[in-house]
Formats: sequence, structure tokens, C-alpha cells
Amino acid sequence: MRPLSILPVLLFSAGSALAQQTPIVHDGEYEFLRAQFGKVWDTQDAEIDARLAEIRSANDGQPPNFLYILIDDVSFGQMGDRKMNYVMGIETPQINQLATEGLSLMRMYTEPSCTPTRTAMLTGRHPVRAGVEEVKVALVGEGLPASEVTLAEILKEVGYNTAHIGKWHQGDIEQSYPHNQGFDWAAFPLHQQVQLSLMTTEAMRANNMLGYTPEGQNNQFLLDERFKPFGLVAGVEGSTGGPASEIDMSAGEVWTQAKYEDMNLRYQQQALEQLERVAAEDAPFFLQYWPLYPLNFVYPDQALSRNGGFHADKLQLLDGWIGDLLVKLDQTGEADNTIVILMADNGLMYHYEGTSGLNQLIYRGGKTQHLEGGVRTDAFIRWPNVIEPNSAAGDIFHVSDIFTTMARIAGATDHIPRDRVIDGIDQTALLLNGEGNGRRDYVYVYEGPVLRSVVKQEFKMHLPAPGQPGAAAPTYNIYRDPREEHPLVGYSLWAGASFQDMVKRHQKMIAKYPHSEIGKGLPYDGIDNLRPETELTREVFMSWQ
Amino acid sequence: MRPLSILPVLLFSAGSALAQQTPIVHDGEYEFLRAQFGKVWDTQDAEIDARLAEIRSANDGQPPNFLYILIDDVSFGQMGDRKMNYVMGIETPQINQLATEGLSLMRMYTEPSCTPTRTAMLTGRHPVRAGVEEVKVALVGEGLPASEVTLAEILKEVGYNTAHIGKWHQGDIEQSYPHNQGFDWAAFPLHQQVQLSLMTTEAMRANNMLGYTPEGQNNQFLLDERFKPFGLVAGVEGSTGGPASEIDMSAGEVWTQAKYEDMNLRYQQQALEQLERVAAEDAPFFLQYWPLYPLNFVYPDQALSRNGGFHADKLQLLDGWIGDLLVKLDQTGEADNTIVILMADNGLMYHYEGTSGLNQLIYRGGKTQHLEGGVRTDAFIRWPNVIEPNSAAGDIFHVSDIFTTMARIAGATDHIPRDRVIDGIDQTALLLNGEGNGRRDYVYVYEGPVLRSVVKQEFKMHLPAPGQPGAAAPTYNIYRDPREEHPLVGYSLWAGASFQDMVKRHQKMIAKYPHSEIGKGLPYDGIDNLRPETELTREVFMSWQ
Repeated sequence: MRPLSILPVLLFSAGSALAQQTPIVHDGEYEFLRAQFGKVWDTQDAEIDARLAEIRSANDGQPPNFLYILIDDVSFGQMGDRKMNYVMGIETPQINQLATEGLSLMRMYTEPSCTPTRTAMLTGRHPVRAGVEEVKVALVGEGLPASEVTLAEILKEVGYNTAHIGKWHQGDIEQSYPHNQGFDWAAFPLHQQVQLSLMTTEAMRANNMLGYTPEGQNNQFLLDERFKPFGLVAGVEGSTGGPASEIDMSAGEVWTQAKYEDMNLRYQQQALEQLERVAAEDAPFFLQYWPLYPLNFVYPDQALSRNGGFHADKLQLLDGWIGDLLVKLDQTGEADNTIVILMADNGLMYHYEGTSGLNQLIYRGGKTQHLEGGVRTDAFIRWPNVIEPNSAAGDIFHVSDIFTTMARIAGATDHIPRDRVIDGIDQTALLLNGEGNGRRDYVYVYEGPVLRSVVKQEFKMHLPAPGQPGAAAPTYNIYRDPREEHPLVGYSLWAGASFQDMVKRHQKMIAKYPHSEIGKGLPYDGIDNLRPETELTREVFMSWQ
Repeated sequence: MRPLSILPVLLFSAGSALAQQTPIVHDGEYEFLRAQFGKVWDTQDAEIDARLAEIRSANDGQPPNFLYILIDDVSFGQMGDRKMNYVMGIETPQINQLATEGLSLMRMYTEPSCTPTRTAMLTGRHPVRAGVEEVKVALVGEGLPASEVTLAEILKEVGYNTAHIGKWHQGDIEQSYPHNQGFDWAAFPLHQQVQLSLMTTEAMRANNMLGYTPEGQNNQFLLDERFKPFGLVAGVEGSTGGPASEIDMSAGEVWTQAKYEDMNLRYQQQALEQLERVAAEDAPFFLQYWPLYPLNFVYPDQALSRNGGFHADKLQLLDGWIGDLLVKLDQTGEADNTIVILMADNGLMYHYEGTSGLNQLIYRGGKTQHLEGGVRTDAFIRWPNVIEPNSAAGDIFHVSDIFTTMARIAGATDHIPRDRVIDGIDQTALLLNGEGNGRRDYVYVYEGPVLRSVVKQEFKMHLPAPGQPGAAAPTYNIYRDPREEHPLVGYSLWAGASFQDMVKRHQKMIAKYPHSEIGKGLPYDGIDNLRPETELTREVFMSWQ
């Protein structure tokens, strides 16, 4: 939802120099850095403004387009790198190629799970500030609140066309839907892949789910036939100002693996169509493609990869699709003026590794965890003639920085709200000037509402449990000990006090700008064609609210 | 030592077609593959012979030079790849560049330790066949037997100039010295880096050895002042037919970190000098450079790397040196006709990871172990205008294959002895025709004399302990489970019998061609300037023999 603007209209397309008159509210740690580097950054910012103006004037006065591809649950190293391709027997030639055409962000930190990472990118804030944790698969009547200001909303303020295709996972209430959060048009599933891929009849009979479906075992004590998701809405489409409509299912129909495959294919097709549509317009575009693949839980009939696993095969398939999308971008003639970002939202859910092929690689841990394996992801940014091809940066980046950086590049910084903490840092300097020009050397790592780790430079402290002394908090050197297995007394006791200061600064800002509440509402409101079984499910949900 | 030739002289420079009249004795598993692919390989071999003849005739009738750089104890992924460089904070730009100029062997298997890997490369045989295990740091009176035929020896047969610089670690007896094993000239330390780097006064006072040196603690019960290596020979130089001379130490001198650094610098300098010397000759050359670095156990005064560890810094230093050597190769004008192989001998000794920075990365385990972390190493081969730049191959390669492949390329296959098992496979097809043309899909993995694992395709069985049933042997899928942590009942019971067959074939060949004995002799014979303290150490050693 669009924020109430507090700035005069004539500032809307002005550069960031004016915006600095009303500074963005950043976290204490950033202000600590700003106190050390503010002057250097101000000088650099003046140069950056000039460069951005140059780029715009070479493009009929318009800022660049923005194509953002966010891939679900992929371990750091699984895409974009030949060595790791060979390790796992999964080939990602198209993504590798994209990596060689742009900048590889070698220390991209996300949140450890789907919903929070996506919220952080959309709002520029740690999701805990918006009351958002993980959104579950079944009905919750919750989601991204209307009061949050998304990147789509602020880009719309400066004239962008916007569209979202694929996974959304920001809640099942009307205010949370993408077409109510700044996207002109959106096609998305209401929930996520647990329902869509794991709860198909086929998946329930497959090895990984054996015994779950009643026909698969003789369980005379089974009562609840709706323990598996029942009657949930699958995929919908909608435009700003209109309702959403479910398009996958008719009344009484059973969700199958074939329908999941069709849904994935359709999103790919719609990504191509939407790209063609927005590229044909005069205005710049922000197109967001968040595929459901590689998540999938049924083995294919014929393996695409040497690995042969369900994850591996869908990642290879998706790699080809991304290649197709980039070819389409070339065909539109807009490639040179489009920033493409491709990244994963968090690590793999490795907890069932071995059998599943969902494996830890370099880093320990995975999705749901504050360990590097949970929150370090591959990330590549291509911006022809601006970002140096085949470059890489070891600077720390957090997914919320995409919000602030893209706002800057689009000339929309003034539309970032000033009444709340924005965690995202403007990293335009890193994009334009390359490695060593990053503006953060820290990350706070949450698991849901709990601050679990603090990263500073090459050190990472796992915070002690409540009531435990700071000296009980192990500290790791991520370069020397990437798997976070060997805390050192030297690090912990030397840096411990400094880490505690960082936590205090962070908490102080939370006290000053308290967290908002998650959005609440009636699940599925704003969908105009609910099936009878969906109505039934909703009634049951309401009965115990 | 040169073998008694059993072939007429006129065959010496003939192609392999003639050599096939007396086939090399390969292991049973290879014959099993040959039964399936022999015809295809014969056809391909005829093409390869034609191509090799072409290459020679374009070079005044001479086969290519061969520069072999073997780096000590480096984890798979630590060099040659940007992503992993960033993970560990260690930059290897020169080796990365070499990787982009040639073929990356993505499944190079070595033996799990220094001595055996080097024996395998030199002889084309699993070292157990020659009675060679790990050669210890102190006196042993043992080493690579004269009866083994090294790659240097067979390349000399077809006219190569040969030189060896750096680590050797094939024993402390005269017959084992490199200048008695086919190298015209050699500069090498008699032992390895435990003595040379870890047992310096400085290292003993450093954090990692704190308390070892008597001055570092108050140990009133200390009796044996010679528990640390005492009076051992450090570095020697020698030429074929002559004695070796110790050059580092004078009588009564104490070995220091500064002397270790000087030794490393000297080997680098000598590698440059020898390259210049042999390149100026008419004959082709085989130059072997086996640096002692990155092994080192004292922190530098000033860190070179973001990692800052002793291993990391020396790896970066060495990377620069390798760049210098490759520049020198360019300057000689011989680069286009020189095959450069760079690889590591085995994984890191990760057993002290964390504090040391010697860490596991992708694969589990390290040096001394049959796990992938012990025996998978980075390996790059550059051969301008023959090997496709920036190519990679997922085919399995074993370090012993270098012996057989280089023999083939040099036209020296006929000089490979026919009276013993040669484990090395001719992989020329892979080098010339690229990925998918490898001729092995298996490796036997030894720890010393014990067969510990069998690798076949993507599967790896950890063999059961003696007396345990085969069903107790876990089998892993290396693509899906690179860390070998999740054996699957399906793999183990399905492939178990086939793995047992592989072991039987291997044992049958051992019964037919029994292992030789390790070479034995008086330590340090053939060195003409032993110090008095060295004589003393030798006398003590002899007193209990």
C-alpha cells in the first residue's frame, strides 16, 4: 500500500542530495560507520548522482529497468560456479553465464527462510520489525501489513510499471497480496510448495512421503482426513484495484503433481509474457520472477542431471528457463538498460540430506538456521556497461540492501518512509565502483523473532541463550572456519564486548522505533471465486478464532 | 633406476600401436572396461597417434615439454576457483588464470598422503605395490626401491632432459634420491616439512607448539633433548652418477624459520633457473617443481591474505611464485609446446582445524584419510592449442594416470615395464578430446597398506573392517552426499556385490603380481658432506637396527 507522502511533489524525481535533508532512519550500527566514513561517502555520493544522471540521460531520461529473480532454497555454491556444479552433478550453465556477465556478491546474507527474506527485500527491513516471521502453509489470516512500504510501491511513485510472477508467501489476507502491495499485476500461489509439491497424491506415495497417504498404509486409527492441507486456494491472479481469481482448480478437483508442473510452466510462460509487455511500454519496469522450482518432491521419470535428484533436476530445468528469460530480455532490446539480479532466498533444507540430495555444501546448516548455510546465498547482478563483467565483491550485503539500492538507482529514495527503521543500506557505490566500496561490514541474523547471531567483518558471534553470560557465546572466524565449528577463546573474549555493544545499539533502536504488528484479516478475502471446499476450510478456521 | 629393456631399440620412438603388441599389465577393473570399450578405444587411439605425430612434426619432430607442479596439502577448492577463494579469504589469481587457460580435472583422485601420491605419480602404480607407505620424518633407512621405474626414467629413454626441485619425500636411502631415479639434476630436502617448518625454534615457541621447547615451560622431567628431530640432513643437491651434498647447514648450526624461508626461496629461484636451462637445450624437458609451501607453521609478521593464517599466506605467496614461473616459461618461448600440470598431492591436515585455518571445505576429512577430503584435489592441465581453454572434465582421473598419459604423449609407452601391474590409465583421449573421453570410472583408495574404499562412478563404498560382512559396508552417492555422511540401504545392498567383485579382481591381480618390498639401505648413504651431528644421529639409528 502506498504511504502518505511527507515530501512535496517537486522533490519526487530529485536526486538523493535533496533527500539527505531528511535522512533515512538507519540502525545504530550503520550510524556508527557513517560517523567514520560519512565525509568520504558524501563525496562519493555526489559522483554517483552524476553518474546516475548520465545513465538516465543516455536512456531518454529514464532510470534502468529492474528484473529480480529470486530462487527458492538453494545452497551457496549450487549455482553460478563450475566447480560446485561438478561437485553436485548439477549443471547451471545459464546462471554461470549470468555470473560472468556481472558482479558476483560473495557475501550476500539473507534471512534464513522464505517469507522473511522476501519481506526484507520488499520492505528494506528485517521482517521482525513488521511482525513477520514464517508464514505457514495452512490458513493463518495474517500477512505483510498494508502499512509496510514495498519497493514496488516506491518504484511506482517514480513511474515504474510493476509485475510479480510466482511464489509470494507473504500471507493469505487481502492487504498482503502483491497487487495490493505495489504490483500492477501479479500471478502467484496463495501459499507455498509444501501444499503444492509435497502434498500431491504422487508425492505422498513417493519414497520421501511413504506411508502418509491412507492408501499407502493400513492405519486403522486415522481420523483426520484433513490433516494434510484441504481445500486451500492454489494459484491466483489479480490486478491493482481488482479482486484475485483462483485459476488452477475447479470445485472438487484434487491437486496433483501434473498440476504443480503446469503451474510452474505457466509462471515461466507468464514471466516471458510480462517481460514482453512491460518492455514494450514507455515507462521503466520492475519485473519480479520468483519461481517455485527447484522445490519439488517427486522424482522425474527421466533424470536431467548427473545427480538425478528431484531438487537437482528442477534446478537444471529452471536454469534453462532463466536462460530463455534472458534471451527474451535481449529480444526486447531492453537488456542494456536492465539491471538483472538473480539470487536464492536462503539455504537448502538439509535436515533430510543424503536420501533427498538436499545437502550441506561448504557452509554448515541450512534453511531455518542462523548458520552460514542458512543465510549465505549466491547472488549475481548484471548491469551492462555499468557493472564490470566477471567481477566479484567480498563486501557484506544484506538482502534488504536491494530495497535501498534500487530505490536510489531509480531516483525513488525520497519515497522511502522516514518514520521507521530501514535496515537496507544504499550499496550503489559497490555496484558502480566495485569491490571494497560496500557500506556495511555487519549483519544481524534473526531466526523468526529471535536475534541469533551477529556478523561483523570476518567474525560471527552466536548469541548466548537468554540468561546466559556473554562469555558463553562462541565466536567464529568465517574465513578460517567456514563451518562455524571451532570457536576461539581469543576471538570470543576480545570481540565479545564489541558484539554486545552492537546488540545494545540494535535494541536501542527497537525501543525507539518499536516493531509493528503483522497484518491480520479474514483469509482469502479479495478472491472472487472460492471453491465450496475452500469456503468450508475457511469456516472451520474461523470457528476457533 | 632404468629398467632392462625387453623391446628392440627400433621400437623406442614408435607409436603406441606397436606397443600394444605387448600390452601393459593393467588391473582387472580396467580390463573389465576394455572388454566393453576396446574397439572404440582402438579406433580413437589411431586418431590420437596421428594427432600426436602432427604435434611432434609441428615441433621439429619433438614431443612436448612437461612442467609438473605438485603442491603440498591443499583442500579441494582452495585454489583455482574464485568462489572458494572468497570463502576462505585466500586469493590464488595466478592459479585461477592457469585454470582458465586449460582443462580442470574435477575428479582427480590422489593417494591420501604426500609420499604415496608422489610414488603413484612417479611409478604409475599404487605405492602399496612397491612397498611404499608414508615415509616418516626421522631416519628410516627405507625408500622408493631402485626396481621401480619412474616417469623420469622412461622419459629419459626417449631423450628428455629432466630435473627435480623441491619436496621429494621418497626416502633417506641412496637408491631413492631423485638423481638416482631418473632426474639429471635435483635439489631437494631429505625429509619433509615436519622437521623443516614445525621443528624450528620459532615454531616451537609459536602458539601452535606452545610448551614444546624446554624454554617455553618448566618441565623438570624432560630427559630426551633429541625427541625433536636432531642432526637430520636438511636440503641436498645432486646430479645423476654423482653424490648428493648438503647445502643448507654447517656443523653445529640450528635450523630456524629463516633457514626454512631461505630454502623455499631458493627452490623457487632454482625452478626458474632450471626452467631456463632446460628450455635452452635442443631436447624436450621434464621439469618437476614440488614446493614445500604452503606448509608452514609460523605466523608471518604481516598478513598477505584476508585470512591471515600461516597456511593461507604461504598459499598466496606460492600463487605469485607460480605466476612468475609461468611468465618465465613464456619468456623461454617454450610455453606453446609445454604441458603444464598443477595439482595438490592430497587434502589438508584438517585435524587441528579452527585455530590453524587448515579447514575442511566441501568434502569431509583430509590428509591421511580415504574420505573425499583426503584424496580429491584440484588439478589443472594447460596445453596450448591442444587442450581447449577454460574446459573442465568430470571424468575420474587418478594421479597414477599422469605416468601413463605423459609416457604416451612423449612416445615412451614402450618403456613402461610389462612385468608388473601399472595402475595408471592412458588418459590422452581425455586431454585431446575433452570431457567424456576418460577411460576409468573407478579408483581404489588406500590408506597406507589398507584398501579402505572403492569408488565406482558416483558411488563410493567404505570397505568393512576385516571379518565384518559386506552388508556392514556403507555406500555413498558422492554427488548427492559429498560429505559421505548418509549411506543408503538401497545403494549398499544393490551395489555391494559389485563392489565386492571389484575388490576380488584387484586382489586376484595382487596374487598374480605380488607387491615388492620397499627399498632398504643405510640412511644418508651417497651424501658426501654429512655433519658430525648427522653422523651421530645415524650411529644411534644403526645401533638398534
